[in-house]
Amino acid sequence: MIQRIDHLGIAVRRLEDAIPVFERLLGSACQGVETVKSQKVRTAFFQVGEVSIELLEATDASSPIAKFIESRGEGLHHVAFASDGVEGELKRVAEAGARLIDETPRMGAHGKEIAFVHPKSALGVLVELCSTPRGGG
Amino acid sequence: MIQRIDHLGIAVRRLEDAIPVFERLLGSACQGVETVKSQKVRTAFFQVGEVSIELLEATDASSPIAKFIESRGEGLHHVAFASDGVEGELKRVAEAGARLIDETPRMGAHGKEIAFVHPKSALGVLVELCSTPRGGG
Repeated sequence: MIQRIDHLGIAVRRLEDAIPVFERLLGSACQGVETVKSQKVRTAFFQVGEVSIELLEATDASSPIAKFIESRGEGLHHVAFASDGVEGELKRVAEAGARLIDETPRMGAHGKEIAFVHPKSALGVLVELCSTPRGGG
Repeated sequence: MIQRIDHLGIAVRRLEDAIPVFERLLGSACQGVETVKSQKVRTAFFQVGEVSIELLEATDASSPIAKFIESRGEGLHHVAFASDGVEGELKRVAEAGARLIDETPRMGAHGKEIAFVHPKSALGVLVELCSTPRGGG
């Protein structure tokens, strides 16, 4: 079951420039920076209520974030929904006819299991499903 | 002070097509539909945790949503942050150097006071600040 929005991903050119912009906008400090090698991104996160805002910088020209910025510029990149189990949610949305980017979950930032649904199946929105594995970290 | 994400706005061509897509994706029912004449949109909303997801359909070719879809297609349109007072937040972000679309708050959906910050001051993200007037309704 989808429980809440886990995070919003925002594609940015340079974290060093983007972090102060969002600190001033939100009136709160960046909570930390993490590199996610599997996704070729460096991410800076802010907590706003129950949702995390993740600024995403490409670490490599082949990163999906580099490609996104090349074609659309900086801006909202994806919405991630927290669920009680990505595998079950993936199965549910696939059975409902959605096209998946990831047929099986993989590892994302903060030790979460993640999988992406294709924007063509979500009104142009790149949707991530995620969950924290039971027993955790 | 910014307290939480109030809603995400998603630009769609036709609510009638978009509502079932999101009902299947989220596994939950649309909570209602409302027309906001001042913004020339019809909106359908879903509640996901503390955040509302608003699908936005243009009611007129001159609507900002019609223009957005014409240039970028369907997809994420804006992020709205709930605060304890839009006027104070607008002043705070303007003093921090942000470019505003609305210099003063105006009326949005659900009786909220709203104002937009220019995407050029928020990493390409169209940001809405909103609050529920004290004494409400």
